[in-house]
Amino acid sequence: MKLLVVALLGIVFCGLGAPAGAANAAKPRTMAEVIAASSAADWRPLDDQNTLYVELPAGRVVIELAPAFAPRHVDNIKTLAREKYYDGVWVVRSQDNYVVQWADPDGTRPIKNGKRTLAAEFTRPAAPDLPFTRLPDGDGYAPEVGFSNGLPVARDPKAGRTWLAHCYAMVGAGRDNDADSGSGAELYVVNGHAPRHLDRNVTLVGRVVKGIELLTSLPRGTAPMGYYEKPEQRLQIRAVRVATDVPAGERTPLEVMRTDTPTFEALIESRRNRPDDWYIVQAGYIELCNVPIPVRPAVARAQ
Amino acid sequence: MKLLVVALLGIVFCGLGAPAGAANAAKPRTMAEVIAASSAADWRPLDDQNTLYVELPAGRVVIELAPAFAPRHVDNIKTLAREKYYDGVWVVRSQDNYVVQWADPDGTRPIKNGKRTLAAEFTRPAAPDLPFTRLPDGDGYAPEVGFSNGLPVARDPKAGRTWLAHCYAMVGAGRDNDADSGSGAELYVVNGHAPRHLDRNVTLVGRVVKGIELLTSLPRGTAPMGYYEKPEQRLQIRAVRVATDVPAGERTPLEVMRTDTPTFEALIESRRNRPDDWYIVQAGYIELCNVPIPVRPAVARAQ
Repeated sequence: MKLLVVALLGIVFCGLGAPAGAANAAKPRTMAEVIAASSAADWRPLDDQNTLYVELPAGRVVIELAPAFAPRHVDNIKTLAREKYYDGVWVVRSQDNYVVQWADPDGTRPIKNGKRTLAAEFTRPAAPDLPFTRLPDGDGYAPEVGFSNGLPVARDPKAGRTWLAHCYAMVGAGRDNDADSGSGAELYVVNGHAPRHLDRNVTLVGRVVKGIELLTSLPRGTAPMGYYEKPEQRLQIRAVRVATDVPAGERTPLEVMRTDTPTFEALIESRRNRPDDWYIVQAGYIELCNVPIPVRPAVARAQ
Repeated sequence: MKLLVVALLGIVFCGLGAPAGAANAAKPRTMAEVIAASSAADWRPLDDQNTLYVELPAGRVVIELAPAFAPRHVDNIKTLAREKYYDGVWVVRSQDNYVVQWADPDGTRPIKNGKRTLAAEFTRPAAPDLPFTRLPDGDGYAPEVGFSNGLPVARDPKAGRTWLAHCYAMVGAGRDNDADSGSGAELYVVNGHAPRHLDRNVTLVGRVVKGIELLTSLPRGTAPMGYYEKPEQRLQIRAVRVATDVPAGERTPLEVMRTDTPTFEALIESRRNRPDDWYIVQAGYIELCNVPIPVRPAVARAQ
């Protein structure tokens, strides 16, 4: 069987206890070798206070929220989850090569403590205390791109602003024409080629770190913009919970590779120029949204 | 209901007979307005001699082959289709955010007239007679990018070479480590963010122009590289046919927007800077794989 013997994993689950590769600083390493040689300090656990579980009939989707970039939206989403606003809402839209989106299709579901609209959080100050690992390569959509707290970001040093980038698996808050009309009550997930033209036009709130295949493999809607034509085509979401509200034994403990370490820089390089035998031409470049941010089951730590 | 009121359609089916928009050369136009104002000369029918129908249980996937870029592979794929080599092969791989791939999983299916391996067709000369509509924007993976015969391409003027680019919906021929080990007997389709690092490393043979949602919505395989773990998880392909071998009444007549016209350049501009009311920040840039190449049902033409 002839394979396309190469993998680009947006989400990588690594075998635990893999032996360290023959890491050699002088020799280019594959991503698998970089990960195998990583230490515990190269990973961070998800913060359960800012982790969302979306419970679908087929399983759980785990979203890491981004309070550093969208504090108001993240707070509102957690409030809505806690008042069970999302329990029973529907995936109403599945547009090929664009987004999957869930919502209350009738807009009649009551909101008690949450807010129906919020001031936009399209960009934020590029404060010196915000981590930023710059990608060595350029980008057409922004002066600088890189990673902050495990998320793909763009930055404009002259304007002093930074913002999350619409890469695959990013989660955003749908809005109407009014910039301040979103709230997080309707959320979408990017399921195709990065729609970077949406950057700075809509508030991104986080990233799917596990279970995205449950959303991306949904049948596509056939109405305009990928909406399902008939209510019975929609998928109902059982519940959305903040991880910290879920009993410890029912959580999904995950670790995300830190993006502010030499290990992550080595990972980027392993993807800019692939030393794998299969490659004949090395790209010498990587586009922001092609850099994987590895996720793995959490290693049990001493209490 | 709050919408993310914008659509990026890799494949656009346009209503026929739509009224021409209030096209005004001085006013930026939306993509819908550009398409509505297009003339018959802005479109070309698919060439049935170089169109492949992949018949799945759920429907037909239509692939436009690229003989200008991969003549040997296209010829071999047509030969294999004509000897019914593909009838009954399986979708063996569905890797999230990467590729869907079909193959004879046991490698035992006989090949009569086709070839099991072929010399690679990773690049070709950038001959002056090959159409090339250059994208005004730069690209990190190649000195120049643009469109040729309705396909996304890259070009290196110094080397005098051009090649197809791994955008969403592009179709390629899987290979082993040997560059000349592919043949088109195993084909893959890009189902996620463009894996442009594969450019010049594997032979691309065409593009899905209709029905890609039948492939991209398949359940993801859970074995390494997205292979299905169990044979019963695979999807069997009923048949693969060259369109010209299918009775006229059973064909899928399609037209693709020409990519060498002022209309297509206007379409690009409508996506570089979106005049739609929803947008607050215009990107002023477009990445190659974000440019849609519209497809529509063929308009009946006078014989």
